[in-house]
Amino acid sequence: MRAHVAGLGLIGSSIGLALRERGSEVSGADPDCERAQRALELGAVDRLGPPESAEIAFVATPVASVVPVARELFAGRPAGSPLVVTDVAGVKGTIARGVVEEDFVPGHPMAGSEQEGPDGADPDLFVGAAWVLTPTARTSERSFAFVRDVVTSLGAEVVVLPPGRHDEIVAVVSHVPHLTSAALMSLAAESAAERRALLRLAAGGFRDMTRIAAGSAGIWPDICRDNAEAIVPVLDRLLERLAEARDLVAGRDRSGLSALLEGAREARRNLPARGSRPDRTAELRILVPDRPGAVAEVTSVAAALDVNIYDIEIAHSSEGSRGVMVLVVADQVRERLGGELRDRGYRVSASPGEGSAAL
Amino acid sequence: MRAHVAGLGLIGSSIGLALRERGSEVSGADPDCERAQRALELGAVDRLGPPESAEIAFVATPVASVVPVARELFAGRPAGSPLVVTDVAGVKGTIARGVVEEDFVPGHPMAGSEQEGPDGADPDLFVGAAWVLTPTARTSERSFAFVRDVVTSLGAEVVVLPPGRHDEIVAVVSHVPHLTSAALMSLAAESAAERRALLRLAAGGFRDMTRIAAGSAGIWPDICRDNAEAIVPVLDRLLERLAEARDLVAGRDRSGLSALLEGAREARRNLPARGSRPDRTAELRILVPDRPGAVAEVTSVAAALDVNIYDIEIAHSSEGSRGVMVLVVADQVRERLGGELRDRGYRVSASPGEGSAAL
Repeated sequence: MRAHVAGLGLIGSSIGLALRERGSEVSGADPDCERAQRALELGAVDRLGPPESAEIAFVATPVASVVPVARELFAGRPAGSPLVVTDVAGVKGTIARGVVEEDFVPGHPMAGSEQEGPDGADPDLFVGAAWVLTPTARTSERSFAFVRDVVTSLGAEVVVLPPGRHDEIVAVVSHVPHLTSAALMSLAAESAAERRALLRLAAGGFRDMTRIAAGSAGIWPDICRDNAEAIVPVLDRLLERLAEARDLVAGRDRSGLSALLEGAREARRNLPARGSRPDRTAELRILVPDRPGAVAEVTSVAAALDVNIYDIEIAHSSEGSRGVMVLVVADQVRERLGGELRDRGYRVSASPGEGSAAL
Repeated sequence: MRAHVAGLGLIGSSIGLALRERGSEVSGADPDCERAQRALELGAVDRLGPPESAEIAFVATPVASVVPVARELFAGRPAGSPLVVTDVAGVKGTIARGVVEEDFVPGHPMAGSEQEGPDGADPDLFVGAAWVLTPTARTSERSFAFVRDVVTSLGAEVVVLPPGRHDEIVAVVSHVPHLTSAALMSLAAESAAERRALLRLAAGGFRDMTRIAAGSAGIWPDICRDNAEAIVPVLDRLLERLAEARDLVAGRDRSGLSALLEGAREARRNLPARGSRPDRTAELRILVPDRPGAVAEVTSVAAALDVNIYDIEIAHSSEGSRGVMVLVVADQVRERLGGELRDRGYRVSASPGEGSAAL
């Protein structure tokens, strides 16, 4: 396969290394010449330059540049080129709205590192990591299936979500925690003033909570701007929660504090391990029209039912304009999702999948 | 040495194990018979029962029981017994006010574990950890020096602070982060509702920030109640900070967000490693009257100047009612602290200490 990576920082260079390890020929570009040279030296790309005849391009630039860079890739695509474009930015709504081609598949690998640039790159960065794909109403099945296969080949586990749902979730599990970590750290720094040495009393819990505040600050202002719509209501809810906690403490309300802390403890202990699947899964086979939007439509129905999709495959029949989409979901939601899709006019067959054989 | 441990949970049992490893004979007690038996089986104590002729007793009960248990130990102390009592609770002001004996030395080892009970005990738990001692205006030098020597022998590094200052610091570096971690976790759990599986998108940062929320909830309501006075203003400041961050996000204020995040990043990167000392230290030798309160007075002067005490020793002259207190502080604060103590009538001599020899 021929691939292109636009943006050769930590993520872009890791993608390049991973693709080349698997036999692809990779071109790459970065506006920072020094960084581009370093990526070439480290073997993240075979050559620097335009995508030429690449079949897939990863836009791994800062979030603010994704839309213009993706548009430029499409504008420069020769007639008849099979080029499919995906990106890796942490916000998906603005990007999904900004690039309208059916061969664009917005994505977000949930992997990173405290390091920066090509020197921090790792070909195994994505092994076992969740890689969210957020097909839009215009994304074609063919492009979606192709990107899905490529990122799966890098060892990632694909999670399919509508762009807006992705943005809500990352506001809760990433953006607001990051801002909170920064707020806690600056509070402690201010409290310590001249007495920095006293911060050495900060034990593991404090270190854990402020670790992400030590990461590169550069990308965050743009992420916060692009995802402001999802972040602001989550911050408002956190402010409410903390104000409640404050009142419980001020009122010496033991039982109220117990309830808050026990609830949080229970939730934390139930936090699923990364990439965990339910014991029993099922397969839904859905006959879909071969037109853009079908993937987004089916996955939006699943998201609206809070159904997680563990795998998705698309098989086109040789007989014409229809294809079969195979969804892997938890066995317990099989009937519910199947019924909802049938109500919307889809032809669906459902069967127990892997892990259910012993039933 | 003969020692007693009242309360055989994780900390109490770890103290027992550490003391026995160093040749002490340790008795112990716990209102939970099963736990007491388990601590005995695991070798955390030599026997279960009262302190009898112990020279030191550690009160390692939940915070709400420390004052009554310490008072009971003093009430049961035979005439002429050398028994000194210390505790390990995470809040010091209420306890320092509640136990008035000159042989009581409030303390707080900054060490713990996610495990619980005697089965989680570890004789090396305190090696390299900070162990705060907060002598009160009534604490005698002899008792202070004795407890200091014992906890140092367990591998801990003693930090001396007035009780109120300790409580302010732990509000910032421990209690408020804990409440924040719980608030973030409950927010995410609520957001996830039926869609728990989506929490698997939670990457390392979120896991780091909510880790402490998974710990035993049992001790926290009492800690929050006892330290409410210090916690509430810190929570108020955090609420202000987060409201500011919210407004920056809502206003898409890139440069304001950059400033917040860069400031936090800088502070986090400068967080001193645990137990780190300045390169150059100095020794202050202070002639002190041999009466209760001298330790607290000197350490309060240091705390008011934001001077951190890295070591403290007390030597009694054979000539009468005076002793010499040796403080190890950063070389750069030597003059300032010496001057302040002289202004208050102390006789002080100062000299460069370890690490300054090469000057």
